[in-house]
Amino acid sequence: MKTEEIKELVARARAARKNAYAPYSHYAVGAAVLAESGRVYAGCNVENAVYPSGLCAERVAIFKAVSEGERALRALVVVTTNLGSPCGACRQVFSEFAADDALIVLASARGNRRKRFTLKDILPDRFGVRHLKRRPRAER
Amino acid sequence: MKTEEIKELVARARAARKNAYAPYSHYAVGAAVLAESGRVYAGCNVENAVYPSGLCAERVAIFKAVSEGERALRALVVVTTNLGSPCGACRQVFSEFAADDALIVLASARGNRRKRFTLKDILPDRFGVRHLKRRPRAER
Amino acid sequence: MKTEEIKELVARARAARKNAYAPYSHYAVGAAVLAESGRVYAGCNVENAVYPSGLCAERVAIFKAVSEGERALRALVVVTTNLGSPCGACRQVFSEFAADDALIVLASARGNRRKRFTLKDILPDRFGVRHLKRRPRAER
Amino acid sequence: MKTEEIKELVARARAARKNAYAPYSHYAVGAAVLAESGRVYAGCNVENAVYPSGLCAERVAIFKAVSEGERALRALVVVTTNLGSPCGACRQVFSEFAADDALIVLASARGNRRKRFTLKDILPDRFGVRHLKRRPRAER
Repeated sequence: MKTEEIKELVARARAARKNAYAPYSHYAVGAAVLAESGRVYAGCNVENAVYPSGLCAERVAIFKAVSEGERALRALVVVTTNLGSPCGACRQVFSEFAADDALIVLASARGNRRKRFTLKDILPDRFGVRHLKRRPRAER
Repeated sequence: MKTEEIKELVARARAARKNAYAPYSHYAVGAAVLAESGRVYAGCNVENAVYPSGLCAERVAIFKAVSEGERALRALVVVTTNLGSPCGACRQVFSEFAADDALIVLASARGNRRKRFTLKDILPDRFGVRHLKRRPRAER
Repeated sequence: MKTEEIKELVARARAARKNAYAPYSHYAVGAAVLAESGRVYAGCNVENAVYPSGLCAERVAIFKAVSEGERALRALVVVTTNLGSPCGACRQVFSEFAADDALIVLASARGNRRKRFTLKDILPDRFGVRHLKRRPRAER
Repeated sequence: MKTEEIKELVARARAARKNAYAPYSHYAVGAAVLAESGRVYAGCNVENAVYPSGLCAERVAIFKAVSEGERALRALVVVTTNLGSPCGACRQVFSEFAADDALIVLASARGNRRKRFTLKDILPDRFGVRHLKRRPRAER
């Protein structure tokens, strides 16, 4: 991916981070995904008084993309103050729509700190639809 | 709410339903929420080979709205083939941003079948921030 | 249900609450479910640094029961300091294994405050497997 | 870890797998965790008509352990027909209670196929409490 494309994703994730609804953790996160179509979708974390009912920024961005018709995602950028990584659940959701070499970039909210991974780097031996394929056809 | 407003939400939810990613359940759902701002946000269900990692249409629409800066939601419309209700988890997520009298409308994918509820009707005695012992500080 | 049975469930939920892992919310919850078999299963909330990855006490108790082979649950007791209700997601998970008239009791951690509901009271018009059964075979 | 300990965990996970409630995916999973205390806790997947409301076997086992008072987990064994890996969300939940070198073993439901990882292998650069800006106070 070109540096310019990544810069654009970081900018989108930073802007989305401003909408973070994080009254419980006070940890604001922004995310942006680039789809095969070339379109970018951004999200932020949205928490809940029932903590398990909240959602991470990465998944908000991914679900947005898929709900707009995207089915293949090329890159995911996450913006926090301290280069926090996507949680395991977000990696799994990204995995449904991304190839091994899809790019994950962690970027700082301010300044230019960066970390780069591929999906395979951070979700090795991933579970996927290929594991379900041997399921019995007859439903109960 | 005016009938015209509901019709618009149903139309948006129906359109979003076409993007449902439901290869595992084959149960396509569309949803649309109306925010206090007057804007409408739509979503569909997005499933995952790891079933618990998927998300319902209602939550996709709500998370979209909040990630775009909305903090108060007035109505939620859900479109299915058979007037399926929002699951409990979706009711809870809606609850974080909606008042007791917020409107929930179930609409059929085709034809004009409808069911109407308020949030209080379908999530009575709801858990919320008031229950948390140490309330969060003012949000940033 | 007999008063003695409920007292036993409350005692089990209170004991389980002592194991709550709630370093983020500091809101400790205990829960106990009574299965058709007559056995009781208890749980507490288990939080996570990634807030959405935690789980509520009620679901911990229910998943325990089902993983021990139970398939029908008759009652759910929840213990908090302030009679907090089960969240919508917990109501939904209970719903998979409980009838409309299954009992939900909220009990205070100390003293004898109580609230009683049926499942139908707190999860009216619930979504369930009957909605999935009519699904089209080859959608899209 | 000794081979005998792993054999015991595999046996416990296989037994738990028999209780899998998987009427939607037909993909049965069993899991077992070994805690620092030396005790073993087992679980299976428990699905839901609302797919996102189900839970994986690994998390059922982990939540059981923590709800019984465990706070440190040493190993996780997962049993499937085809050496399916823990999903990202399960890796994250395990991560809350496990060190980098905690052991994950995938085992086949029949026969002796095995795969071994450490937590760090399958959840590199993991998000954790150290990332949260305002760390929780000492747990009660």
